[in-house]
Amino acid sequence: MTESGITGPVRIVGAGLLGSSIGHALVAQGVDVILADVSLANLTLAIDYGAGRAAAEGDTPELVIVAVPPDFTAEVVASELAAWPEATVTDVASVKSAILDDLKAAGANLDRYVGSHPLAGRERGGAISSRADLFIGRPWAICTDSGEPERQRAVERLVRALHAVPVSMSAEEHDESVALVSHVPQIVASLLARRLSAASEEALSLAGQGLRDTTRIASSDPALWVQILGANASSVIEILEAYRDDLDVLLFALASPDAAAPRRAIAEMLAGGNAGVARIPGKHGQARTFSQLVVMVDDTPGELARLLTEIGEANVNVEDLRLEHSPGAQVGLAEISVLPEVEHRLTEELEARGWKIVGALA
Amino acid sequence: MTESGITGPVRIVGAGLLGSSIGHALVAQGVDVILADVSLANLTLAIDYGAGRAAAEGDTPELVIVAVPPDFTAEVVASELAAWPEATVTDVASVKSAILDDLKAAGANLDRYVGSHPLAGRERGGAISSRADLFIGRPWAICTDSGEPERQRAVERLVRALHAVPVSMSAEEHDESVALVSHVPQIVASLLARRLSAASEEALSLAGQGLRDTTRIASSDPALWVQILGANASSVIEILEAYRDDLDVLLFALASPDAAAPRRAIAEMLAGGNAGVARIPGKHGQARTFSQLVVMVDDTPGELARLLTEIGEANVNVEDLRLEHSPGAQVGLAEISVLPEVEHRLTEELEARGWKIVGALA
Repeated sequence: MTESGITGPVRIVGAGLLGSSIGHALVAQGVDVILADVSLANLTLAIDYGAGRAAAEGDTPELVIVAVPPDFTAEVVASELAAWPEATVTDVASVKSAILDDLKAAGANLDRYVGSHPLAGRERGGAISSRADLFIGRPWAICTDSGEPERQRAVERLVRALHAVPVSMSAEEHDESVALVSHVPQIVASLLARRLSAASEEALSLAGQGLRDTTRIASSDPALWVQILGANASSVIEILEAYRDDLDVLLFALASPDAAAPRRAIAEMLAGGNAGVARIPGKHGQARTFSQLVVMVDDTPGELARLLTEIGEANVNVEDLRLEHSPGAQVGLAEISVLPEVEHRLTEELEARGWKIVGALA
Repeated sequence: MTESGITGPVRIVGAGLLGSSIGHALVAQGVDVILADVSLANLTLAIDYGAGRAAAEGDTPELVIVAVPPDFTAEVVASELAAWPEATVTDVASVKSAILDDLKAAGANLDRYVGSHPLAGRERGGAISSRADLFIGRPWAICTDSGEPERQRAVERLVRALHAVPVSMSAEEHDESVALVSHVPQIVASLLARRLSAASEEALSLAGQGLRDTTRIASSDPALWVQILGANASSVIEILEAYRDDLDVLLFALASPDAAAPRRAIAEMLAGGNAGVARIPGKHGQARTFSQLVVMVDDTPGELARLLTEIGEANVNVEDLRLEHSPGAQVGLAEISVLPEVEHRLTEELEARGWKIVGALA
């Protein structure tokens, strides 16, 4: 048994981004991970990448993780429950109620099933994008509607082993929550990005970080999202209709933008946004905040390396780094995150070496 | 005269974020900067912060920069044009046509006026948030509708002195462009964030990076944005109505999410978002895309520097770099953007040097 209490073997069905990432993390902890995928190509790739091994005669998984697209999740969970009569079975789909309903309709044994959902992902999918650290510090919902207490605990052990943060709630609460914090934002970003399809090059040349941030998730996979949105349509519709009502109020106000009442209406909408964004909690599981330094770096080979070498010589670890470039600029900005206690010393050392610290971003 | 060709004095009216930031940057270059503000408190703060000096008897500005809220910009530009009969006058408001129209209506001398707009800002305003580097690498629109050629050149010199990237266009083109890349994104983000006001703590506990990015700009100042949106209402309405039409299509499709035609409609909306976001330019205003390599990097001081040094030794320029790293993980992932033609060679060279490439993404 590993430190996390997971004895294994753990069977992962679906060797995409989530399945392979879970595999990598468990393999690194010495757990015996069995991978399965309907696509032999996917399976081979994930095994080659070290996310687990192929199934073998006599395997008896302790835990089964179903990581297939939402449309197929209930069916695969049901067949895994039937195939392994002792195993705890969980899934990681982004929607939970529809899957639970399908399982109930199919007469599946729900004593051993615990639905779950890691709030982690990337715009890019597949085993090729998988990472052992994908779940670190991320919320991971565990649904309380089914599964005996020991099965619930088994899934919580998995979540903790992956350094994610377990959040218990019902499937219905989960679906309403993700509609708000994930599904509606996806729609809003996609529809905004869609407006750029026919934009002039000129207009796009004025694009800044605000547009980039607001549309980043619009590059997500449509095929996956059709399934997610379809399976959570009622919760999504409720929020989206309220959003559309606000949009109509704003459009009406913009039609007479110089009058007092419309201006007040617009200001109230924007102030509502201020209040809402202020409620988003900080990074989960992140025990501490880092300080950021922004350093000017010439856009020539080796300059960034020299900066990082000199930071290393100052015996400072770069916790995070982001290079900001803008169209036409001959210089980049390196935003470097460091532990707060070294910020002052690093600033002095870098300035002494001739680097220009141009400020710390908010 | 400084290296940038700006002789000064430069008079800046409005000592907020933009005015003070311009002041800081010019003072650092040895330009004589005169600050003015209707609020003595603002003015004193900006002067104390080193953004310039107070006005004095006998000042004769070469260039006047009006950096007051959009509602007051035309009025202040007109009075500055009248007060300084030799000076070039520009402004930095986020909307351009309405100001130009007001100036024409007021019979101002437009030979010396050149409207402009830096696409730079922060969620926080005021002299206290000002930074000399605010404009580095940012697009800065210069309007071609008014101002004699020498006045246009004077404003372009200012833009270059601040290390921003001049983009010439008409006031109308500007307003249509920023409606798309700035004003509508602001509305979309604010209305999305507004939905969070009444959210449960539970729902918010599932918030991830997608929600944070999508709503970041929702913390902007409502009073300022009421003016911006009001002054560009017609361009904003046009885009927002198309957005609302898409939203209605999506809402209609979500009402029967299991049927084929609605699913296709949802998928098309999301795919349109993929296409749109792909059009946002990267660095250097180039339409070209870069190739990305993802390299595993041990989380110890100096490792990232070693990677970048070795990339430099391979004579490859890093066009963009992002370190993905989660607190507590023992390994980070460096996503390196390079010209597509060097990707293959770099992959081979890095692998030969023992680096693990964990994905090469299109």
